[in-house]
Formats: sequence, C-alpha cells, structure tokens
Amino acid sequence: MHNKIIKTGIIQQHNTDNIAGNRERLSEKIELLAQQGAGLVVLQELHDSLYFCQTENTSTFDLATEIPGNITDFYSDIARRNHIVLVTSLFERRLAGLYHNTAVVFEKDGNIAGTYRKMHIPDDPGYYEKFYFAPGDTGFEPIHTSIGTLGVMVCWDQWYPEGARIMALKGAELLIYPTAIGYDANDTAEEQQRQREAWITIQRSHAVANGLPVVSVNRVGFEPHPDNHSEGILFWGNSFVAGPQGEFLYQCSNEKEEIAVVDISISRSEEVRRWWPYLRDRRIDAYPDILQRCADKNSRKSDKNR
Amino acid sequence: MHNKIIKTGIIQQHNTDNIAGNRERLSEKIELLAQQGAGLVVLQELHDSLYFCQTENTSTFDLATEIPGNITDFYSDIARRNHIVLVTSLFERRLAGLYHNTAVVFEKDGNIAGTYRKMHIPDDPGYYEKFYFAPGDTGFEPIHTSIGTLGVMVCWDQWYPEGARIMALKGAELLIYPTAIGYDANDTAEEQQRQREAWITIQRSHAVANGLPVVSVNRVGFEPHPDNHSEGILFWGNSFVAGPQGEFLYQCSNEKEEIAVVDISISRSEEVRRWWPYLRDRRIDAYPDILQRCADKNSRKSDKNR
Repeated sequence: MHNKIIKTGIIQQHNTDNIAGNRERLSEKIELLAQQGAGLVVLQELHDSLYFCQTENTSTFDLATEIPGNITDFYSDIARRNHIVLVTSLFERRLAGLYHNTAVVFEKDGNIAGTYRKMHIPDDPGYYEKFYFAPGDTGFEPIHTSIGTLGVMVCWDQWYPEGARIMALKGAELLIYPTAIGYDANDTAEEQQRQREAWITIQRSHAVANGLPVVSVNRVGFEPHPDNHSEGILFWGNSFVAGPQGEFLYQCSNEKEEIAVVDISISRSEEVRRWWPYLRDRRIDAYPDILQRCADKNSRKSDKNR
Repeated sequence: MHNKIIKTGIIQQHNTDNIAGNRERLSEKIELLAQQGAGLVVLQELHDSLYFCQTENTSTFDLATEIPGNITDFYSDIARRNHIVLVTSLFERRLAGLYHNTAVVFEKDGNIAGTYRKMHIPDDPGYYEKFYFAPGDTGFEPIHTSIGTLGVMVCWDQWYPEGARIMALKGAELLIYPTAIGYDANDTAEEQQRQREAWITIQRSHAVANGLPVVSVNRVGFEPHPDNHSEGILFWGNSFVAGPQGEFLYQCSNEKEEIAVVDISISRSEEVRRWWPYLRDRRIDAYPDILQRCADKNSRKSDKNR
C-alpha cells in the first residue's frame, strides 16, 4: 500500500486589532511553512481580525468581504506563490444583510478549490455569532484538492458528530477545523480545564469514529472586550493534529504563538478502518430519529408529515 | 435546582469457565455495592461466562437463555433482594436459530424494566459475534426505571455516535455500556495503548456531544482461546464513569477485579447543556446523508427510492 503523506502546516496566532499586520504575519509564516515542505496550510478561524463576536455591533459588518474579492485575491496570491493548498476562514458578505462564516480553500495555483459555510452557529455570552452569521447552506461537502479530499468545517461544528460522519461518508480523507475558543475568566481553573479537555476529546473522537485524521487550529492569547463590558477572552491555543485512532500527532501549547509542519499519513486510515470497520456495521435502518430536533412523543407524531 | 444523584455501582470481573461461580461472585459483589448505597448496579458484557465469541461453535448456543427464564429469575431475585436497579448482559435465545446479545434491566422490585438488543454487531478475529448474535431490533430506546431513564447499549455500539445521540434525543439521562474488549497479543504495546485510548475517547465523547454521563463496564484479565487456535484475549478492564463534559468521575485499573460506587449527578447535565446548547443548534435539515451506507455518487442516485 502506497503511503500517502500530507505535510500539513498549522499556524496558531495571537491576533491584534491591526488587520493588515495580522495578515502580513500570516503571510510570512505560510512562507516559512512552505519552505519547511508543507503542501497544505490551515489557518485559525477568522484569522484576519480580533474575534469580533464578543459584541453585537452593526458597523462590524464592514469587515466582511465578498468571495471572490480583494481578500481572497490576497490569499490566492499567497497560495500560488508558495505552491500550497491553503485553508482560510473569512467573514463573507454574500448580500446586503446576509453574511456567513466561511472557509475558503485555495488550490496550489491560486484558484478557489471550494468553500464551506459554517453550518452550526453558536450564540452564548462573548460568542454572539448568530447576530453576524447566517447558518451555512453548503451542507457537509468535502472539498477536492490536488493533495486530498478535505472535510473542512468551522469551530462550533466540531461539537457535532453528524458533520464529521457525513464528511466521512462523502469521502473526506482529512477533517479540518479552524476554530476560536477560549476560557471564560469567571470560571474556575477546574471548569476551564474540563472545557478544554472536552474540546480536545470531541475532536479526537471524530478521528476515532470515522478512522480519519483531524486538524484543529485555534487562536491563542488574550483579546479584550471592545467596550470593556466583560473581561474578554483568553483563547486557549492547543491546536492539534490527531491520527485516525485519535492519537496525537502534534499538540501546540496553550499560551504561545506557534507554527508546525506535521506529517499526516492518509494511507493509515485504510489500515485502521480494516481493523475497526465501523462503517460496515452502521444501522442506517435505525437512525432516522437523528433527523429530529427531539425524539420525544410530540415530535414522533409529526413523523408522518416527513 | 434539586441535585439528583444516582449512586452507581460497577463490577469489573475476571471470569472463569465456572459459570455458576461467576454468577455467585457477581451476586456477592452486588450485595456489597448495595450495602455501600448503590441504587443502580451495572455489570460487564456477557458476565456469566467466558467471552465465548473467540470461536464459532454451534454447541455454544446451549449457553443462551430465554427472557424471561431461569437466568432472568436469578438476577431478578438479586435486584429485588438488594432493592437496586440492575443492568445485566445476557445471551438471549429468542427462537431456535435466533439469538441476541441482550441487556436486561431489572427494577428494584425484581420486575424487568426493559431490554435492549445489541444493535451493532462486530466481527473480527477473536470477536466472531455475527455468528452468534442477530442484529438487535429494539432500536435505541431508553429504559425507564425508578432511578432514572437509562440509555443502555452494548460494547460495539460504543463506537457509534448515532446510538448515543438517539438515546439523548429520546430523553436518556445516563448512557450505559456493558462491554468486553481487550488487547490483541500480536499488537505492539504502542498499538495496544492507541486502541485503549481510542475506546476511552469515543465513549467520553458521547458524554460531551450529548451532555450526559457515561458508564462503561469492561471485563478484565486473560481468557485463553478454547482450542488454543490463537493467543487468547487479555481484557483491559479500565471500566470508567464520565460526567457530562467527558470528565472522569472514576477509572478502574487495567489489570484487576474491582467494584466501586460512583455518585453521578443527573442535575449537572441540565447545567452543562445550558452552557453548551448543542441540541439547540443541530442542523437536522442537513443530516439526511447519515441514513446512507455511503454518500458517494452511487448511493445518491438511490435517494429517489427512499
């Protein structure tokens, strides 16, 4: 069996309010990773700016970009210059009043290989994403690139086994999550630890359940609340790469900016799935309740209308 | 918010070929756990005998029991005497030539609260379960008991996020997996470690994804192959209880028999689900491909026939 390796570069960055500066630093790091042999580079969620969803402010929509547009031209150029496949995470302006949290994947020649619009949108204190982003309408479609078939999702999607499973059933070879998650300063150290562990566990489990490697790239460092209405967010970094049994191939620190190139064997999935053939034994006849909001008695009545 | 606690007893046992002896030891341990305050006791998979699926032998079907029958009478009596809810795992004879791997849950008064027939059936070297067990037809229905609503599944089910999700959507308050899993003696120590870690990770992830505690009870110790055709199985124990963020509440050793009573807060799930409202944001409109064997082009054509 030919051992197919994807040399995957990840960039865990501490962003500032200097958007041009953030982009410039990303550009320099991508160049470094490409020099180190990366054929794929994955950036964190909404990597151009501070995490602006800490507050609801209509003027923030000015940050959004059309796709394609000036910003995709910027990253297209970087992908082409460095001859890499590049996974970016942008604030998409689709129409006036219609915005998305969108991953754009660039081919080595700079063309857009595909886009994914974040399907699950969170909303909790400090993460007011339902204000900014309409739920995605791309579905869970892997993006075909010259280095492999990429199951790209975004942040909150990472908590949903359904998305990972559908990407796997559609042939994804690698699951990728650009993300932005941090500690609530009001939580105890124990609670912060439980949350970070849960975040790691659920993503490693997508690797296990589907026999696929997982790449998760998170931002790092403190970002103050824009109006000082809360204590801001300390993003916990901990970007990581797991193999198809959920085993760690690489883990970044919790505090520091970091870049790394990680060798991911795509062939290993074939081996792992032969040992643990979960896809063979799925009880698809018994899963229809997955398509319900809640499978209590009220919703079962409405089954007949499906 | 009233803090509802389920005091949960678990029994990790090393079985021998002395079936009456295995049962007697279970009975004694259940009594001990009840004396220590357990209101629920969970046994490992197929706890009466050696793990007989190491080989395919038609005479092994003699071990199977009708439900209800002599064996359920035995456990019913134990549940009633100790005034506990008891989760057992039995080899069910349903009809001549039709057998299941069935969990039977007994109420404190000894009545059968409900049964669950293992839905996902494995088959790999040393685990020839497809020979012995027809796939379950109960679906993923939680069992209502006086101490709570139990999402009981069995072993191989634990690798499937779908089963856990459906149990949660149907109101399960606790996920329970009696199980029997061990090392392949031919694997390297690193591979054995990866497999055990994957097994822990996937089950903790069901806690995380659904905001539910998880109880997993595994057998422990070496069981030789009945005809010495292979090196037998060293069952890795490591029974554990996780809270609704996947955090460990208790972990047994890998080598030894063990019993424990673990306090599981059911109220904690309500709190965790308010912080992390995954159930609110599920994209049920985008999940239909979950119901397919594979979501490649061939299967999509057949969609029209569904």
